[in-house]
Amino acid sequence: MNKLDQNPVIVDTSQSPYARLKPISLSKISLDEGFWLDRYRINLKKTIPGQYRLLEQTGRLDNFRRVVGEVQKPFQGCVYNDSDVYKWLEAASWSLQYDQSEYLPALIDQTIELIVQAQDKDGYLNTYFSLDKIRERWTNITDKHELYCAGHLIQAAVAHHRVTGSYRLLNIAMHLADHIYMTFGPSQVEATPGHPEIELALIELYRTTYEPKYLKQAELFINRRGRGLVGGKEYYLDHVPFRDMNILAGHAVRALYLCSGAADLALETGETCLLDALDRLWNNLVNQQIYLTGGIGSRYEGETFGLPYELPNARAYAETCASIASLMLNWRMLQCQGKARYSDLMEWTLYNAVLPGISLDGNEYFYENPLKDDGNHRRQSWFECACCPPNISRTIAMFPGYLYSSSDEGIWLHIYTSSHADFEISTGQVVSIKQQTIYPWDGQISIEILDIASKSSDPQFINSAEFNLFLRIPAWVGNQDASLLINGKTIRQSIVPGSYLKIHRHWKPGDKIELNLAMKVQFIESHPSVLENIGRLAITRGPVCYCLEGIDNHDVQFTQIKINPIGGSEAEYIHELLSGIVRLSLAGKVMPLDRSWEGQLYKPYTHTRKYYRGRTIKLVAIPYYAWANRQPGEMEIWHQTL
Amino acid sequence: MNKLDQNPVIVDTSQSPYARLKPISLSKISLDEGFWLDRYRINLKKTIPGQYRLLEQTGRLDNFRRVVGEVQKPFQGCVYNDSDVYKWLEAASWSLQYDQSEYLPALIDQTIELIVQAQDKDGYLNTYFSLDKIRERWTNITDKHELYCAGHLIQAAVAHHRVTGSYRLLNIAMHLADHIYMTFGPSQVEATPGHPEIELALIELYRTTYEPKYLKQAELFINRRGRGLVGGKEYYLDHVPFRDMNILAGHAVRALYLCSGAADLALETGETCLLDALDRLWNNLVNQQIYLTGGIGSRYEGETFGLPYELPNARAYAETCASIASLMLNWRMLQCQGKARYSDLMEWTLYNAVLPGISLDGNEYFYENPLKDDGNHRRQSWFECACCPPNISRTIAMFPGYLYSSSDEGIWLHIYTSSHADFEISTGQVVSIKQQTIYPWDGQISIEILDIASKSSDPQFINSAEFNLFLRIPAWVGNQDASLLINGKTIRQSIVPGSYLKIHRHWKPGDKIELNLAMKVQFIESHPSVLENIGRLAITRGPVCYCLEGIDNHDVQFTQIKINPIGGSEAEYIHELLSGIVRLSLAGKVMPLDRSWEGQLYKPYTHTRKYYRGRTIKLVAIPYYAWANRQPGEMEIWHQTL
Repeated sequence: MNKLDQNPVIVDTSQSPYARLKPISLSKISLDEGFWLDRYRINLKKTIPGQYRLLEQTGRLDNFRRVVGEVQKPFQGCVYNDSDVYKWLEAASWSLQYDQSEYLPALIDQTIELIVQAQDKDGYLNTYFSLDKIRERWTNITDKHELYCAGHLIQAAVAHHRVTGSYRLLNIAMHLADHIYMTFGPSQVEATPGHPEIELALIELYRTTYEPKYLKQAELFINRRGRGLVGGKEYYLDHVPFRDMNILAGHAVRALYLCSGAADLALETGETCLLDALDRLWNNLVNQQIYLTGGIGSRYEGETFGLPYELPNARAYAETCASIASLMLNWRMLQCQGKARYSDLMEWTLYNAVLPGISLDGNEYFYENPLKDDGNHRRQSWFECACCPPNISRTIAMFPGYLYSSSDEGIWLHIYTSSHADFEISTGQVVSIKQQTIYPWDGQISIEILDIASKSSDPQFINSAEFNLFLRIPAWVGNQDASLLINGKTIRQSIVPGSYLKIHRHWKPGDKIELNLAMKVQFIESHPSVLENIGRLAITRGPVCYCLEGIDNHDVQFTQIKINPIGGSEAEYIHELLSGIVRLSLAGKVMPLDRSWEGQLYKPYTHTRKYYRGRTIKLVAIPYYAWANRQPGEMEIWHQTL
Repeated sequence: MNKLDQNPVIVDTSQSPYARLKPISLSKISLDEGFWLDRYRINLKKTIPGQYRLLEQTGRLDNFRRVVGEVQKPFQGCVYNDSDVYKWLEAASWSLQYDQSEYLPALIDQTIELIVQAQDKDGYLNTYFSLDKIRERWTNITDKHELYCAGHLIQAAVAHHRVTGSYRLLNIAMHLADHIYMTFGPSQVEATPGHPEIELALIELYRTTYEPKYLKQAELFINRRGRGLVGGKEYYLDHVPFRDMNILAGHAVRALYLCSGAADLALETGETCLLDALDRLWNNLVNQQIYLTGGIGSRYEGETFGLPYELPNARAYAETCASIASLMLNWRMLQCQGKARYSDLMEWTLYNAVLPGISLDGNEYFYENPLKDDGNHRRQSWFECACCPPNISRTIAMFPGYLYSSSDEGIWLHIYTSSHADFEISTGQVVSIKQQTIYPWDGQISIEILDIASKSSDPQFINSAEFNLFLRIPAWVGNQDASLLINGKTIRQSIVPGSYLKIHRHWKPGDKIELNLAMKVQFIESHPSVLENIGRLAITRGPVCYCLEGIDNHDVQFTQIKINPIGGSEAEYIHELLSGIVRLSLAGKVMPLDRSWEGQLYKPYTHTRKYYRGRTIKLVAIPYYAWANRQPGEMEIWHQTL
């Protein structure tokens, strides 16, 4: 293992010519005690080992042993099951950065050895097709997920290489990528995969190996869309060339993986057409296609986007993987443009669309994420199509990498959570900072310059550094609700929600920044074209979307409840509840059950009607991510209002 | 052809021990000029011949010729394509009752000869499995629709036999049914089909042949549900024994075909458990699962029922076949119990859920029937899965049979439309009546006793008959809005909407009944648990559900429109419009487009808001069944209200 080759960067845009921001290596970031370290530990101690056991129990590892000749069994499960092994391996590899055990490295090594042995001589690697189906290789790249699985192998290999410096798995990935280039490269078979993923993976491989053909191959796959090579269907994102797309349509995860790959390509090429298409699609996403939670892809049929504003609550599909894909896309857009709208959506998606996908104990998962439920939707320990569990796991494993960036202009703080990090700034100095907060429960964030180190002996670089600090001012904060103190003095700088606050200064060790984002309970309404939400309000506080759950609001049916948005609210942190949450109490009324509807679904409208005053009650709301961790009952995010 | 064997009754419950009502033979009923004769003629002259051409063009007839050895081609299309030929044949056979051409009988005869020759020696008949797949017969009755196709063959054969007296196709059906009994009968393979249909068909075959094993086999198939024989899944109605079902779930068409078969069984056996289950399911249907239109099965995924009150408008599935299945079930329940709630729903379903499934010119069809659309949902001339077109066609061909019933108590009028009919009453006298109305455009119905004939010479039976006339008083009529005159004199009898008005009298030829059902424009609201309809009203007039269509209400987006339910309305019959309709003009307002939502999907709620008065406009509504027959545009049934 060559330490020099270690560069544990989650998406390595450090050399990308069109990246405004540069990533920070995981080796320079540590989480400190707080919300996200808790999640990180559960991922490391419970989720990753638990998923390995399930890979074993469900035959996903035996599929490799079968190809290697260690077991005599037929292929088990779905055609894309290799990808779950690779995503687990990616999650485990990123985690190695922080793991001190012997257990995890051993599991990783033995899994890698299986993969190494399962590769065919020509570089092909897929346990479904190897052995008996070898003649069917690449005969149906629309539906058989070979390039999708290849993409996840490459991502795992890149992660493992960046964290450990090892070439063992990276060589396998390069051999496979070379085989793909020989098969689908210029002047070869003109094809593009049914499920995007290979594109972004190949670009990451290019960034690791500097081999330009990988970038070329990714571009070819993107350019070949919209020409009927995948049947011309919207579902496969083949209905129109990527650069001509105006609206997100088709399978949600596929669409956003494709966008992420296109964003990676744009980071390398700077191509305006690509960036314009990404801008249009991003605007369509946030203006017409996204749930309040950040959930994406509303339709069960085909796991697709619906029509604009088609956002049913109980029947929300909102696949956990689609939220993760949104996170991936927004991170790339953020690195490209440095705009807070992307990091705002990343943070919102993490709390309200990714975290709901996993139980608080780290052992059960949601595939679909409804915004309303009768108590029947419960997390499962695994799925036949198990894409979501290891996707959550690798996302949490990568999480520290999403906190910060650097650029020629300075240091960027995207996501607030207790942590410390080292940044090399343009002068060559290394700035160490420490961030302390109990975010997302409170908006007080204190940032301290711990140290400024320099290799130079020039006095101007000793114990002082001139750079900009870019602090994300979340879009959720009210216009007058954010304030800033430096070394105890209020800074009279205009603070604009939804932008980066740029603080230029000669910083010194011991400098203290106190950013205060007042976390108020907010009532949210939605665009009148979202039919189910007319007359309804949702509740948020800071970056957290709240819901009502039956267990906290018993003895009433949710159809009877109306919240009172001007009735005030109380927020209380309760350590013992749901791994520690801020619970909200809200004013509301319980309306009597309208008996006039018994035994009727429709009736003639009568203009005069009874006026019910209702009984005043206190409603209790919890963070949406924590729902379905106690006894089953009703849940809703959008509430009727007085 | 033996004329004595002709008994063209659409569902022959004439001997069923538990039928309160008895059907009237098609040979005793004629439609007169009016709404339904127009539809009947289009079905006969356009739809049935057009569908035959499509059966030919799409290889559905060639599939039979292939088995017969007339063509050398592989099987074409879906595994269940034989059923489309059979449903067409059923439609054509019922139509023979009124058809005077040589064209249709010749088509029918040549189709029957193909079917006769395609039957295997042992009675098996299915062009997908015959020849090369003969060893796969009955290996997957969960998904391969063999018993479903068999059911439709039997229904076609029964129809052809009842109308023509011919045994040619009936013998084929009996041979197939005998083969099924040998295969799945008592002590044989314990199986039940994935798609119900065979049950009701076998019972109709029993009613035609008096062979009890067909009834037994139907009962076996029904009794075997809920035991995991079809994988135990709700989709296949195998999650619970039929008699234990409380809620309609699973595939909507399958569920209602099964209910129809169970109702047929109950008509023969009188079994209380079956009737109780049917009552529960019917109540669940009308209280929680049905669209205002009578459309059924709200989910695209699996063509299934949703959860209670899950009735999205734009994403309504509401398959045309499911509405037809509802009609079938309600007819059987009506014959069993003689309650107006069933005939009310039949009439409503015919106008608002079956008729929308076909274009006014009789050539194009809807499979899904949304209650809101942006102009992209258009009728098609055919479908790969073409169940709906011939299902509509046979329904219209059977329509005259739904108008009347008789019973020991007298004569029943269910559906109002210009027609005349002969009834043999319990005294043996034959009563001829004539019904005249421009229903559904006006609620004046005049009924005249044309003649009373008797074989007896007893003077009390000459020119006079004592019997009850049961007139359906629709549920849609207001409590004080119905009146009755006999021979010009107002009858002071309590008239209860949603019930049969029983008029006992010594009737004489020339007696005239004038029933007047005031057709007022009504605004309808829906149960508050139907989330998309909160704050919205729909418009109905008589038995017709109305909608707004873009072409009549241009220059506004439907999101801007609010109707004013106390602003009055005008109804005008326009002969030239949409084959003749009553068009409604309604008071409404156009609200200005709310610019505050531009570029936003969610925003914080503010308690104070602008008050817009809006611009007063006249809104124009047309019957929902007539939508999408002109240029594409927005359509909606549920409107925002002032």
